[in-house]
Amino acid sequence: MIEGVQLTELRIIEVEGGDVLHAMKRSDPGFNGYGEAYFSTVEHGATKAWKRHRSMVMNLVVPVGKIRFVLYDDREASPTYGRFSEFLLSRENYQRLTVPPMVWIGFQGVDGTPSLLLNVADIEHDPQETDRVGLEEFDFSWKVEE
Amino acid sequence: MIEGVQLTELRIIEVEGGDVLHAMKRSDPGFNGYGEAYFSTVEHGATKAWKRHRSMVMNLVVPVGKIRFVLYDDREASPTYGRFSEFLLSRENYQRLTVPPMVWIGFQGVDGTPSLLLNVADIEHDPQETDRVGLEEFDFSWKVEE
Repeated sequence: MIEGVQLTELRIIEVEGGDVLHAMKRSDPGFNGYGEAYFSTVEHGATKAWKRHRSMVMNLVVPVGKIRFVLYDDREASPTYGRFSEFLLSRENYQRLTVPPMVWIGFQGVDGTPSLLLNVADIEHDPQETDRVGLEEFDFSWKVEE
Repeated sequence: MIEGVQLTELRIIEVEGGDVLHAMKRSDPGFNGYGEAYFSTVEHGATKAWKRHRSMVMNLVVPVGKIRFVLYDDREASPTYGRFSEFLLSRENYQRLTVPPMVWIGFQGVDGTPSLLLNVADIEHDPQETDRVGLEEFDFSWKVEE
């Protein structure tokens, strides 16, 4: 696992008429304060990469569909420097992915239908603290076997 | 509008490959502290009613599907005592519904497919602060015209 990244099992409570899905309690591992919660929808096959937050701790949950996340650590002082790490999140593998600042992230919709991603972030959105580079910047193949 | 209830327009930002949908910033109207974020899925036609929180302020957002909410005010000191209030939330009518403590709430899935509801609550889940009564307790017709 990339230094500082956490994966936390989440509960789905079966309820007649529709289940309850946990996302993030303030007493949960990975909670670092609350700034903003927002959704990203991810179309099937769409890849959004690469992005890095300079300050934000992301807490990512996938309640609908299936999303492939790839993290890349280029922090020179990190024990996991140069490493990629991959996660496939969905309701079937219902976990929360905590991503510390300065780790690159990309994600891809791999469900037949649009997927939904919730980020419970410790700060409000601020374009100033976000870096972006193109898909080809790091040596990772996003190709999905059909 | 029932006393203490707020409805707040939310932004959807169009992005290639999948839109970004705002849910709740800590600087937003209705924010009352952060305790927990959790999802409820609501099957088409399923009705969950009635529930009341004694302490929790709910902030409700519907990123998937369409949910009908009905609120009922039986707080004797309230200027809107005895009133029902109805809201239909979806991505087409993308608003956040803030519900204060002691107001009864029920909801119903009215999309063809399962809907998804996010609650950004100011306290963590605590069954002790929740009251429930049956669907028939208040004189409201949940029947949907097909």
